[in-house]
Amino acid sequence: MELFALPPRKKGQPLYRTIYEQLRTRILNGSLPYGLRLPGRRRLAADLGVSVNTVSTAYEMLAAEGYLAAKARSGFIVCASAAQPCCSASPSLACPDEPPAAQWRYELTTSAIDTSLFPFKTWRRLQQTVISQSPALLQHGDRRGDAVLRRAITAHLREFRSVRCLPQQVIVGAGMEYLLGLLAQMLSHSIFAVENPGYPRTTAVLRNSGISLCPVDVDSCGMRADCLAESGANIACITPSHQFPTGVVMPAQRRSELLQWAYSAPGRYLIEDDYDSEFRFDTSPVPSLQSMDSAERVIYAGTFSKSLAPAFRIAYLVLPCHLLARWHQWFGSYSCTVSRFEQHTLALMMENGQLAAHLRRLRIAYRKRRDVFVSTMQQLLPQVMLSSTHTGLHLLASLAPNIQAQQAADCAAQHGILCRTVASYALSPHRCTDQRIVLGYGALDEQSIPQAVCALRTAWAPLWHTAP
Amino acid sequence: MELFALPPRKKGQPLYRTIYEQLRTRILNGSLPYGLRLPGRRRLAADLGVSVNTVSTAYEMLAAEGYLAAKARSGFIVCASAAQPCCSASPSLACPDEPPAAQWRYELTTSAIDTSLFPFKTWRRLQQTVISQSPALLQHGDRRGDAVLRRAITAHLREFRSVRCLPQQVIVGAGMEYLLGLLAQMLSHSIFAVENPGYPRTTAVLRNSGISLCPVDVDSCGMRADCLAESGANIACITPSHQFPTGVVMPAQRRSELLQWAYSAPGRYLIEDDYDSEFRFDTSPVPSLQSMDSAERVIYAGTFSKSLAPAFRIAYLVLPCHLLARWHQWFGSYSCTVSRFEQHTLALMMENGQLAAHLRRLRIAYRKRRDVFVSTMQQLLPQVMLSSTHTGLHLLASLAPNIQAQQAADCAAQHGILCRTVASYALSPHRCTDQRIVLGYGALDEQSIPQAVCALRTAWAPLWHTAP
Repeated sequence: MELFALPPRKKGQPLYRTIYEQLRTRILNGSLPYGLRLPGRRRLAADLGVSVNTVSTAYEMLAAEGYLAAKARSGFIVCASAAQPCCSASPSLACPDEPPAAQWRYELTTSAIDTSLFPFKTWRRLQQTVISQSPALLQHGDRRGDAVLRRAITAHLREFRSVRCLPQQVIVGAGMEYLLGLLAQMLSHSIFAVENPGYPRTTAVLRNSGISLCPVDVDSCGMRADCLAESGANIACITPSHQFPTGVVMPAQRRSELLQWAYSAPGRYLIEDDYDSEFRFDTSPVPSLQSMDSAERVIYAGTFSKSLAPAFRIAYLVLPCHLLARWHQWFGSYSCTVSRFEQHTLALMMENGQLAAHLRRLRIAYRKRRDVFVSTMQQLLPQVMLSSTHTGLHLLASLAPNIQAQQAADCAAQHGILCRTVASYALSPHRCTDQRIVLGYGALDEQSIPQAVCALRTAWAPLWHTAP
Repeated sequence: MELFALPPRKKGQPLYRTIYEQLRTRILNGSLPYGLRLPGRRRLAADLGVSVNTVSTAYEMLAAEGYLAAKARSGFIVCASAAQPCCSASPSLACPDEPPAAQWRYELTTSAIDTSLFPFKTWRRLQQTVISQSPALLQHGDRRGDAVLRRAITAHLREFRSVRCLPQQVIVGAGMEYLLGLLAQMLSHSIFAVENPGYPRTTAVLRNSGISLCPVDVDSCGMRADCLAESGANIACITPSHQFPTGVVMPAQRRSELLQWAYSAPGRYLIEDDYDSEFRFDTSPVPSLQSMDSAERVIYAGTFSKSLAPAFRIAYLVLPCHLLARWHQWFGSYSCTVSRFEQHTLALMMENGQLAAHLRRLRIAYRKRRDVFVSTMQQLLPQVMLSSTHTGLHLLASLAPNIQAQQAADCAAQHGILCRTVASYALSPHRCTDQRIVLGYGALDEQSIPQAVCALRTAWAPLWHTAP
């Protein structure tokens, strides 16, 4: 029976496995059809020159998996049929390759940070302590994030951001996209207002969650309260500490207006994304909007992506107390998405004051960078007006009224410099008249700043000459 | 001017900060109304007995934050107004406390594992290597998960699960709930069939995502293909390796039928959740359904929650090639939710063969436990019929036709033993006639199994006596 010739044996593979695989393949491709009676074990063993046990093992594996059925007195019968696609469309055989990573000489983006400032020694030592002492951490932890981290976040926010909350209001998750996605589900019958221009991932997450979006214009004080009132939205996503990308720090008057808006109808909330609030260089950080809220209408959101590193996906929400029961009803069965070892390491770092010390060092380092970047720009590119230089890890550059920002960004790209225009963050970029360019300097160390600015000058030189 | 009396200074707080905070509070509570001109710096400094610089700093901080405006020749004017809630409803002051963790003597659940089997030394050593050698890992990584881990997963799945895929088909994320949530968004106009009874978190995630669900009954071969065909669903979530909770290993014939269903209309997919497939004790693991699929209709999903530990939130999807472009269109801007350090540590562990070795040790340890658990049950509770004992970390117990499963679970709970009934996993538990109990033994070591079974015998003893 030629069908059962022994195929070449794969290196290191047991013989029964070789026989099992051959039979399985033939059942699946239909060459051993449904209902066929297989030769007895002894006969096949003799045919193949193997032991009866070997054949038995293969037959029993196939029977356990449902390919064969053992019938009393008649041995094994094929009881699976070939699964052939009946749709004629052949599957796409070409699988898109991994896209090559873009190579830039200088990345003046808003999300990169300088990893050389990371306190590796501290982190490694604390993580060792956590791993060595706590095997119980391998089990499922608290679904909201472990209490030790939620307590540390509560204390940190009280001290540095004037946020008033209890640990049970804190929800830890693997990044803002994840947490905002859950919020969008829980508040899915709402209409969300987003800043225009604004942070593109906020928009992407809300759109993907099927949320109705209203873009609301940003002026020199942040999201316009009059436009928000007219938008029909009941939830507004805002970045009051450092509007993305325009860098506006929302003044108290506008904060009051937005709170008044939230208070003036039930079911209204402000989602305060407090990204970058750690990096305010020339005055104390502005306290959070949440600290001004007297009626639980602010949902506060923060992340450790910049204060620690983007590689750690640790973000959190502070929910108003009256939303906690609803949150647990929706997501009470979801595991926390952040590794418990990293949760506990970070909690230790915060408890010991090492995160606060690290943040002080970061602020000093980035302020120095800001100073070097601004002074080098003023020296080498005096025509360029800089703004929004007091806070955050990016600033804004205006070239000249007659130079289009997109053209400047394109010229930079041709010279290997990555930067984006403010307008590229608008929801309708072609209708945005803002001609400023966003320059992030978080990832540049002091030595490379002059080189990066020189490269910018070379890239932009033709623009000054050809401008009418 | 009494308003500006110096309040008691907080310990360690700079004087300007004390003044700043007092002024800010009074602006916010309205006692310094909008438009008020503040006293000049020199006058206030003299009134308070502090330096002019101290007052200047406080005024400038308030101006930078928009509470004050500097007017030429008239000093500083209050330009924010009190934000009082105009809604009369007072916010909920009572914040629900942290719920106390339930205390059980024995947890016979399906998700707990024995953490003493975790290869701490290996993990710690590899993680040290990763942290020491790769500061670049602090930056954002590949959004699908880093290539090194996706390659390792591809090789692992090829070897152990016969899954055929390329690394670019693998998407890494922080837990199955997260990844299934994204799939649900991408396929949001679909109707999903779920196993009944089935895994409650699958249902929770899909419901929260706003998906229309069809519960489809499970028989002794897994999800019923005839019911699926009638359900109107175009996506089916199944657990063919080890149906949750009934423990059925889907035979090849049923696998063929489900694939035929998927092939017979465009836009149909099977989501194969391959949880627990590592733990098959008496024969080789059944190859994945994905390996039988010849038309790219299976989306394969796996997790390291049990093979490593639940504390690591590392799961993955294997997408058909033709869905990759759509995935990137939807989620191309989302960061990977798993810490890069843990991604690289796990990749090293897999490349070195240490995960495979760990899995072999786990399988031997859990098989031994299964043996001890089954033999102790047979000895101490011979009336109880056990089934589904060959695979996974739980088995099923039938007490007697006249004993209700829920009553048995309640008796166990009264004796500090946590276990659930099969029916409790049904979408309409009161209509489910299955009277079996799910007993998980993953978290019990060999020493405690006899004690746990003794405790069960004590808990259930009254049932045998009172049963009619």
